[in-house]
Amino acid sequence: MTTDRNSNITAPYRRLEEIFRRCALIGEATGMLGWDASVNMPPGGAAARAEQMATLRVMSHELLADHAVGALLEEVSSIVGQLDPWQAANFREMRRAWLHATAVPGDLVAARSRAAAAAETAWRGARADADFSALQPFLEEVLALTQKAGQAKAEALNRPVYDALMDEYEPDADSARVVSILEDYAAFLPELLDAALAHQARMPDPLPPAGPFPIPVQRVLCRQMAETVGIDFNSARLDESLHPFSGGVPEDSRITTRYHDDGFIDSMMGVLHESGHAMYERGLPAAWRYQPVGDARGMTLHESQSLMIEMQICRSREFFEWAAPVIAHAFAAEGPAWTPANMHGLAIRVEPSLIRVEADEVTYPAHIILRTRLERAMIDGDLAVSDLPGAWNDGMVALLGIRPPNDRVGCLQDIHWPDGAFGYFPTYSLGAMAAAQLAAAARAADREIMPAIAKGDFGPLMAWLRPNVHNKASLLSTDALLIEATGQPLGAEAFKDHLRRRYLGA
Amino acid sequence: MTTDRNSNITAPYRRLEEIFRRCALIGEATGMLGWDASVNMPPGGAAARAEQMATLRVMSHELLADHAVGALLEEVSSIVGQLDPWQAANFREMRRAWLHATAVPGDLVAARSRAAAAAETAWRGARADADFSALQPFLEEVLALTQKAGQAKAEALNRPVYDALMDEYEPDADSARVVSILEDYAAFLPELLDAALAHQARMPDPLPPAGPFPIPVQRVLCRQMAETVGIDFNSARLDESLHPFSGGVPEDSRITTRYHDDGFIDSMMGVLHESGHAMYERGLPAAWRYQPVGDARGMTLHESQSLMIEMQICRSREFFEWAAPVIAHAFAAEGPAWTPANMHGLAIRVEPSLIRVEADEVTYPAHIILRTRLERAMIDGDLAVSDLPGAWNDGMVALLGIRPPNDRVGCLQDIHWPDGAFGYFPTYSLGAMAAAQLAAAARAADREIMPAIAKGDFGPLMAWLRPNVHNKASLLSTDALLIEATGQPLGAEAFKDHLRRRYLGA
Repeated sequence: MTTDRNSNITAPYRRLEEIFRRCALIGEATGMLGWDASVNMPPGGAAARAEQMATLRVMSHELLADHAVGALLEEVSSIVGQLDPWQAANFREMRRAWLHATAVPGDLVAARSRAAAAAETAWRGARADADFSALQPFLEEVLALTQKAGQAKAEALNRPVYDALMDEYEPDADSARVVSILEDYAAFLPELLDAALAHQARMPDPLPPAGPFPIPVQRVLCRQMAETVGIDFNSARLDESLHPFSGGVPEDSRITTRYHDDGFIDSMMGVLHESGHAMYERGLPAAWRYQPVGDARGMTLHESQSLMIEMQICRSREFFEWAAPVIAHAFAAEGPAWTPANMHGLAIRVEPSLIRVEADEVTYPAHIILRTRLERAMIDGDLAVSDLPGAWNDGMVALLGIRPPNDRVGCLQDIHWPDGAFGYFPTYSLGAMAAAQLAAAARAADREIMPAIAKGDFGPLMAWLRPNVHNKASLLSTDALLIEATGQPLGAEAFKDHLRRRYLGA
Repeated sequence: MTTDRNSNITAPYRRLEEIFRRCALIGEATGMLGWDASVNMPPGGAAARAEQMATLRVMSHELLADHAVGALLEEVSSIVGQLDPWQAANFREMRRAWLHATAVPGDLVAARSRAAAAAETAWRGARADADFSALQPFLEEVLALTQKAGQAKAEALNRPVYDALMDEYEPDADSARVVSILEDYAAFLPELLDAALAHQARMPDPLPPAGPFPIPVQRVLCRQMAETVGIDFNSARLDESLHPFSGGVPEDSRITTRYHDDGFIDSMMGVLHESGHAMYERGLPAAWRYQPVGDARGMTLHESQSLMIEMQICRSREFFEWAAPVIAHAFAAEGPAWTPANMHGLAIRVEPSLIRVEADEVTYPAHIILRTRLERAMIDGDLAVSDLPGAWNDGMVALLGIRPPNDRVGCLQDIHWPDGAFGYFPTYSLGAMAAAQLAAAARAADREIMPAIAKGDFGPLMAWLRPNVHNKASLLSTDALLIEATGQPLGAEAFKDHLRRRYLGA
């Protein structure tokens, strides 16, 4: 972060910075409108909001896809040796964004967006009725257009189609490696799962704390949890939405969760997860704010930061040493259900289940492996949309030994495919693996991290994450960053070790 | 509203509609970010939000000030006879917007914006310390740049400087007429005020209801009041902010107020006032949404709609026939302080005071007359900023017989001048006069309006306002609209009659 932004570099590069700065600011405005739509907006505002957001997206796209940008990129490519490493990385990311923006013709972009909107509406109805046939034609249209866009991107990026689609979420993703990492886990899972379930069965069942858990108390508790992770509410908000998410900008994080008075673990873990995302954004280098290199690296590292907090840290025994009494105090409760050991036991229950977003840490990757296999096959033309429900159900039996009784809890459960987001799913589990790898390296580098967590002090953890992950933004590839931080490229080994330790007592 | 938008008209006009549609959508996005900044944003987000909003404003300005727009306007001006009345009015408003956007050179726009930002910051400190000297140099800079911009606009619009500045808030405003209307009221005020105070003194003092008034109850009550006016909360929100305002879009009104538990009249009247603004926006013609002719006519008519609801209707005896028992029920209260007569008496107290935003209906115009005199003199170079405090205090003595003990409750009370908004103040009182004129015409046209109000039914009132004001948007000038609706151009007579009836029992 000692880059001299005032060094004598070329005008075309500066001009590119100006254009990308404007795109970034439009993106921030669009993001805030999206946050409002999820958190505040009355239903009557939806159509007008869609128009507003579409206008901003079109303007940003026009700005980026303008032929002047192509000419400037061409110019700068001949003097890239004069750029410092951050500028060169910024130039590389500008080029990537421009390739994505220009690869797909405007009418195909618009057609994809319309098809996704129609499919999303159809999906809501189809899921409610557990009726895949109501979605099928819409999903076929989305898939056909996504294949077309993928082919265009593959040509522009000189990469296989599925890799080119993944590149939007995980830059430079190599599907062969991604698949080998995920399939490695698929091979490891059956034995681990049996052992974990057996280990769990040998322990006494944890006691469920007695509810109800008043929502006003949960709100205060969740706010305290976010503050403990490091969120400063002078530059953040905690609100409620149907699905928890983290939005806003580094100086104004917008975290959401949802509350039910029959439990507090989900709302609390939701806030901790989203706080991990927000801390990443808040730790991005201010000097590169509004430039592509200043953005989070990709969805793998983003998810690694939320899972670092939620899974690696906040489902650890150490965390509950601190948190259990805090939680019990919040609910003015006491007794054996509220001990650190019992609460920790509750937080790490393993049980194969049908719904991805409710899955535990051990079985979650199975849900991702299934989706990755299926979406690759669909993109490659090896699986017809009409065969998806059967392939899904067979896959669930093969991976987790359970068959969905209907498509609502099967292949209709996620919005990603109707939305056209093929290539996104793998990043959830790659993120879990990166989190385990980073957590192991952090603990090895600073033995005080976990003892501090046991006192509710996230300072040492953040002191390691900030220079090793957050501050690096998009300077390096995901693998290069992981090698610098952990000595290894992305792999499943640290994650497997973590699971063995946590779920087998190994 | 039977305009055929598909009639065979020229391509350049259609192209202009597209450009203005985009500007309108950017404006809506900017407005929503402004609402969030006032209602939700943590303080840490301010700098980033300013960047986001500035970027959107610059993009909208670039779009509008593009020379292509000038060429298109030129083209359409030669075939304006082929446009229907709504299209022709739309073209007229496009031209006005373009003249405002292009009249002032970009560096002067930027300098004004920077000077206003600096002056606003200085004003907050100066007001807190009651120290005008801390604001003076900043206000001098703002005034000098406003004069310069006003001269540029005067040239473009071929109008006097002060008129050209007013035009931004009140299209086609003629300062000579505005001044004659306001000075007419200034001449009328002393006698009316004496008589109103004497009349008031002859009546028993109204009883103050005993508080505290729990804020959760006020929230429910205010929501009920807005719904009674006609706000549908499937497409509206009611929130809290430092200063009440009405924002959002027609399908998603964002009304705010503020609550203190020692009184409920202010929060309730704030919501009723802002509901009047929102009902105007909600009644604008959907067919012309996103076009200049589809916007509210100007600040005079906008303020007429808020004051129609707050002052003309909701401080009437009829309104309290319905509202007093509703309010008493909300607070589970009873007794002589909660009768319609007593609550009405509280809502129409007259007392000369120092602060504009706290002024009653009778003395409010005096605050406006003072500001209009002073700002015209400053713009014309007849009053130096250094002489403002003295001129202000002398003016208050002359108009209302009270001398501010310091500048905090004198010339430092409003943000408008530091903000560069010269020419805005008159619209508050012109709005009050338009409201009285429209209310008289409405009552004469439908004798059921006030009896319905006494039952909490705003239907007949809105049934008159919708075609006579709301649906006309910017089709006509303010005066032409008032002539169609009331038979008269804007004047003070109906307002004077209203005050005589309400405050003298005439």
